[in-house]
Amino acid sequence: MSDLPKSAIIREEGPREGFQSEKEFVPTEDKLRLIRSLAETGLPEVQCVSFVNPKWVPNMADAEEVANAIERVPGVRYTGIWLNLKGFERALATPLDKHGTLQMSASETFSIRNSNRNNAETVEEQRRILDAYLANNVPVDRAYVMTAFGCNYEGEIAPETVRDRVAMILDIAAERDVKLNTMMLADTVGWANPEAISSVVGLIRERWPELQLGLHLHDTRGIAMANALRGLEMGVQVFDAACAGLGGCPFAGHKGAAGNICTEDLVFLCHELGIETGVDLDALIESARLAESILGRQLPGKIMHSGSLRQYRQAA
Amino acid sequence: MSDLPKSAIIREEGPREGFQSEKEFVPTEDKLRLIRSLAETGLPEVQCVSFVNPKWVPNMADAEEVANAIERVPGVRYTGIWLNLKGFERALATPLDKHGTLQMSASETFSIRNSNRNNAETVEEQRRILDAYLANNVPVDRAYVMTAFGCNYEGEIAPETVRDRVAMILDIAAERDVKLNTMMLADTVGWANPEAISSVVGLIRERWPELQLGLHLHDTRGIAMANALRGLEMGVQVFDAACAGLGGCPFAGHKGAAGNICTEDLVFLCHELGIETGVDLDALIESARLAESILGRQLPGKIMHSGSLRQYRQAA
Repeated sequence: MSDLPKSAIIREEGPREGFQSEKEFVPTEDKLRLIRSLAETGLPEVQCVSFVNPKWVPNMADAEEVANAIERVPGVRYTGIWLNLKGFERALATPLDKHGTLQMSASETFSIRNSNRNNAETVEEQRRILDAYLANNVPVDRAYVMTAFGCNYEGEIAPETVRDRVAMILDIAAERDVKLNTMMLADTVGWANPEAISSVVGLIRERWPELQLGLHLHDTRGIAMANALRGLEMGVQVFDAACAGLGGCPFAGHKGAAGNICTEDLVFLCHELGIETGVDLDALIESARLAESILGRQLPGKIMHSGSLRQYRQAA
Repeated sequence: MSDLPKSAIIREEGPREGFQSEKEFVPTEDKLRLIRSLAETGLPEVQCVSFVNPKWVPNMADAEEVANAIERVPGVRYTGIWLNLKGFERALATPLDKHGTLQMSASETFSIRNSNRNNAETVEEQRRILDAYLANNVPVDRAYVMTAFGCNYEGEIAPETVRDRVAMILDIAAERDVKLNTMMLADTVGWANPEAISSVVGLIRERWPELQLGLHLHDTRGIAMANALRGLEMGVQVFDAACAGLGGCPFAGHKGAAGNICTEDLVFLCHELGIETGVDLDALIESARLAESILGRQLPGKIMHSGSLRQYRQAA
């Protein structure tokens, strides 16, 4: 499989993704312990918090407190997310690493149902958001196409629809002379399969060969790792992931459904395929175990329970 | 991906694999309910029990009772396993579908540690077992190579070693004019990765193009579905699996480690890739949920918690 990339960038979303869906409030100090542990594994970025209304996401009520208390490991990006300009302004007031992200949903119905905006309105909103980023000197280098592989309202999404959304996002950026480096294709509600990955990645790459593509995969139906493998086989080098398989997708109506692809299991796959990640897998497994001890229940990650192969290889 | 097979045979091991590792005794009636439910999904085979010493595996103490009480769904094979001739004799006395299986470990150290036999002694033992099968008119059509991708004692296993074991097994069969149809490559302790799958499957197929190959995958380190995908891409058409991801691998020293690849998640992957399995996925999801309700705790399967895509596709 000579098409496999030599290296991959795996972005950690566990603290934000994982804690925001917890019912019980996770103490601020525990959040900081997990962030610190993850930052020491070699991961290039740790997404720490979400600046959302604590009325809806009580576990993010201490977002500022977490952001302000982080003791930085050099070279690691500590990031947060927000859903609107108010959240962005809250993020601006913290020492987090700011990066602007544009996004559109491939499924217009999903967009209307989740954010009450059709495509034209989304474009307008994204222009306003981009202007706010630029006015505050926040770098904008990445965008997301949500529901890029399917949607519970519209069903399968044609790859050509994803291509159209990518074009719309790139146009918004180009209007302001912004060059987006990375386009993330998000399997928001668990519709992706390896053939769909090939079709969408292939079509987007054919049209924009210089655009770096990434995958945001959820393990909703248990085949995220197969989708990641196909992504790697297609040369995809950027992945979002959550340690211990933290998180879930409550907003999509999947109660108990799985969250993001598990970071340390994905790192294991990469390393076994000879793909460098810069991550110390054994240290990351310890982070996942810390997450499990913080939440007090078994988490879905697999290698965190079996251990890596290092000890066996050393003994053999 | 034109090399994907048109169909796959997925053998269900959940009742045996899952219940044998439970600490609390699972009532016989519950075992029968799960077996019945699975048999109605279109699965071609349900492995129901293990004829082992109940002193070591208390949950299999009712193996005969289960085997005798099964109400058959036509066309389904109801099978059991055994570890020695004594277990085989117990199985013979039941109405289960008998099939003889030969097996060797690719790792001789694993064989010595787990069954106290080196390769030469294993060959002798397998000859005795084959003779017992033939003396009782039990068909022998399948064999397993255990630890085909790695071993906690020996580390990586060279594909050539697996080829040697396959040759030894085929020789044992050929001595008695037995033709083995299927050779199962077992990732007994979770060492497989997609490249290793390609190497081993490729080497065995090159030597014996007519031999049907199958994969027995454990999700010990979270990449079983990626391994299954690579297997399918290599044309592998036979898989062992356990509904709801039941089971585990306690004997290999992985406390809390994952069991077999999850049947319904694998069926979902196959169907999304256009590979027929003959299985009603929604019915199988109900079986997995039944397993969860019997054991009273969340099981690791994914699509059983999110549901299939059928309802969304119908509505879209």
